Amino acid sequence: MAVHGTARVFPARRLETFIASVLAAVGLPESDAAICAARMTEADLRGVDTHGIFRLPHYCQRIRVGGINLRPAVRPVRENAVTALVDGDNGMGHVVMTYAAQLAIRKASETGLAWVGTFNGNHAGAGAVYSTMPAAHDMMGMYMTVANGNHMPPWGGVEPILGTNPISVAIPAGDEPPIALDIATTVVAQGKVKLAAQKGESMPVGWMIDRKGQPLTDPKRSAEGFLLPIGGYKGYGLNVVIGMLAGVLNGAAFGRNVVDFNKDFVARNNSGHMILAMRVDNFQPVDAFKREMDRVIREIRESQRMDGVDRIWLPGEMEYHKIRERQANGIPLSPAFVDELRQLAGSLNLSDRLD
Amino acid sequence: MAVHGTARVFPARRLETFIASVLAAVGLPESDAAICAARMTEADLRGVDTHGIFRLPHYCQRIRVGGINLRPAVRPVRENAVTALVDGDNGMGHVVMTYAAQLAIRKASETGLAWVGTFNGNHAGAGAVYSTMPAAHDMMGMYMTVANGNHMPPWGGVEPILGTNPISVAIPAGDEPPIALDIATTVVAQGKVKLAAQKGESMPVGWMIDRKGQPLTDPKRSAEGFLLPIGGYKGYGLNVVIGMLAGVLNGAAFGRNVVDFNKDFVARNNSGHMILAMRVDNFQPVDAFKREMDRVIREIRESQRMDGVDRIWLPGEMEYHKIRERQANGIPLSPAFVDELRQLAGSLNLSDRLD
Repeated sequence: MAVHGTARVFPARRLETFIASVLAAVGLPESDAAICAARMTEADLRGVDTHGIFRLPHYCQRIRVGGINLRPAVRPVRENAVTALVDGDNGMGHVVMTYAAQLAIRKASETGLAWVGTFNGNHAGAGAVYSTMPAAHDMMGMYMTVANGNHMPPWGGVEPILGTNPISVAIPAGDEPPIALDIATTVVAQGKVKLAAQKGESMPVGWMIDRKGQPLTDPKRSAEGFLLPIGGYKGYGLNVVIGMLAGVLNGAAFGRNVVDFNKDFVARNNSGHMILAMRVDNFQPVDAFKREMDRVIREIRESQRMDGVDRIWLPGEMEYHKIRERQANGIPLSPAFVDELRQLAGSLNLSDRLD
Repeated sequence: MAVHGTARVFPARRLETFIASVLAAVGLPESDAAICAARMTEADLRGVDTHGIFRLPHYCQRIRVGGINLRPAVRPVRENAVTALVDGDNGMGHVVMTYAAQLAIRKASETGLAWVGTFNGNHAGAGAVYSTMPAAHDMMGMYMTVANGNHMPPWGGVEPILGTNPISVAIPAGDEPPIALDIATTVVAQGKVKLAAQKGESMPVGWMIDRKGQPLTDPKRSAEGFLLPIGGYKGYGLNVVIGMLAGVLNGAAFGRNVVDFNKDFVARNNSGHMILAMRVDNFQPVDAFKREMDRVIREIRESQRMDGVDRIWLPGEMEYHKIRERQANGIPLSPAFVDELRQLAGSLNLSDRLD
C-alpha cells in the first residue's frame, strides 16, 4: 500500500495505539502514554498536522536523552477555590496540561470560574485540544502558552526573543459546531515553516523576513530570519501579554530564558501554560445561551460572500468538519514520514511497524 | 490664544471639569457626570484622542434625544462569588463599566479571580482605562467589548456585520510602567477613520477596502467600504470570539442587532462589555512577580533594534509616558474642535466656554 509520494491513510485509533506503544517503549508509564497519544491524535483529527503524530520523533529524542521526567509529580503548589499553580515537574506537556484542564473544569464546576497556570511543563501540542475540554461541561475555555522557541523579535527589533505564543478560545454552541479559535500571534506558526521545509515547498511573502527586513521564502533558511506578528505592533503586544500571563505569572520561561526545544533536547524547558474555564450559566441559562450562539453563528455564515468565496467559516468550524471526515476516512501521513515512524518503531523493537 | 490651525492646550483638570459641567447640564446626576468626565479625561491623558473629550458632542446628542437613561439602576441581575452579570439599564457606558470594574476588583480581592459582564450599556470610551483599574490592587485586568457599529464583514464576506471589537489586557510591573495592551481587532479602529476625516487626511492602504476588495483611502468614503481584521482570518476569529464573550454571553448585542451609534441616536444600544480581574499573588508573591516583570520588560526594550528604530516600546508604555507628559503640559485640542465645544457650552448656557 506504500505508494511513493501519495499519502498513506490510517484510522485514528490505529495511530493513537501506535503513539501510545512508542511512548511506552521509550519509558512513559502506560497511563501517561495513553494521555499523550489521545491528545496528539486529537490534534491530527482536527487537521492540526503540525501538532500531532508529526512531533512523535522529536518527543522521543527528548525522552531518550533525558530531557523529560518520565515519572513527574504533577501537582498544585499554590491553590485556592478558583485558581491553581501547577508544577509540571518537567513531565510531558500533554500530561501536565490534561491535569491542569481537568483541575480547571473541576474548580469551575464548583465555583463558576477557574484559572489554572502551569510551570515546569513541556510542549503540549495543539491549544484547541485543551481549550475545548470545558465545552463538554457547558463552559467556555481559554488557553495560552509560551512557545518552545523564539523566532520573532520585539516590534522594531532584530533579536528573536519572542515565540509564536498562541491563544485558543472555545465557546459552546447548540446545534452548531462549538466555536474554537486557535491562533499563533505570528502570521504563521513555526510548525508551518517546518512542514513547508519537510514538504520542500517555499513560503509566501509575509510569513518571514530576514534581518534586513527583506522577505524570506525558503523555509530551509528560516534560521536566518524571523516570523512576523499579526497586525504589526498589535500582534507583538498580544504576543508579549500572552507570554506574561502563561509564562511570567507561572514562574515559567519567557524571553531569553526560553529553551529552543529544536536545538537543545536536554535542558529543562520550564514551559508555561494557562487555562481558564467558566460556566456559561453564570450569565445565561445554558439553553438560551446556546440558541443565541446558534443564531449569531448562522447570521455570520449566511451573510453575503465576496465573489469567488464558497463559504464563510466560523472559528473552529473547519476543524469540526475535519474531525468527522478523518474519523470516517482516516488520517493521512506522507510516505517519508511513515518511513521515519517505521524506523522509530524498529529502533524500539516494536511489533507494530504501521505496515 | 485661539491661533487658527494650531492646537490649543488645556490642563487635564480643566477639561475634566468642563466635561462634567456639560454632562451635568444635559441632565446627568453630578456624581455620574464626574465619573464620565474622569474616564474620558483618562483616555485623553493616555493619548487615545479618539475616545476622550472627542466623543462629548456625540454623547450629548444621544442624551438630548433620549438615547441614554440618565437615572439608570445599574445592578447585578445574576451573581455569585466570582462572576456577575450587570444590567446597565441603558446608562452612560462609563458609569456602567466603572461599576463593573469596581465589582470585579472587589470580588477578586476576596476570591482571587472575578469575571463581570454587562449588558444594556453604552460606549464606555477607552478599554485600557478599565483594564488598568485592577493594576492598582496588584491584579491583572482584561477587558473586551462589542463595538457600537459594524464596519467589518466576516472573513470572505462583504456585509459589515462585525465591529472593531477591542481587547485590552493590563499587567502590573515593578519599577517599570505597567503593561497595558489596548487593541482593536481591526487594523485600525473606526475612531481613527473618523479622526482622519475630521483632519482632512487620507488613510494608508491596508486600513480599509471597498466592496470589490480594492483599497479605500478617502476616510469621507468610509461608508462605501469596510475595515480589515489584523492577521486576516486570525483577527476575524479573535473579533468573533470577543463579540461572543462580551456580547452573547451577556445577552448584549452582537452581529446585525448592533445599533450603529453614529446613525441612530435613540435606539437602545444594549452594548456589552466584560472585565476580568485576577490577583497576581494567586500565582507568585507580588514582589517576585513584579521583579520578573521588570526583568522581562527590560530584556525586550534593550534588545537589539532594527536600523533606524530609536526605541522598542512595550504595550502601554507610550501611553504611560503620554500621561506624564500631558499631566505636565496639558491636552491639545484642534481649534475647530474647541469651537465645537464652545458652541456646545453656549447652547447649554454654561459659564465655562473654554476661553
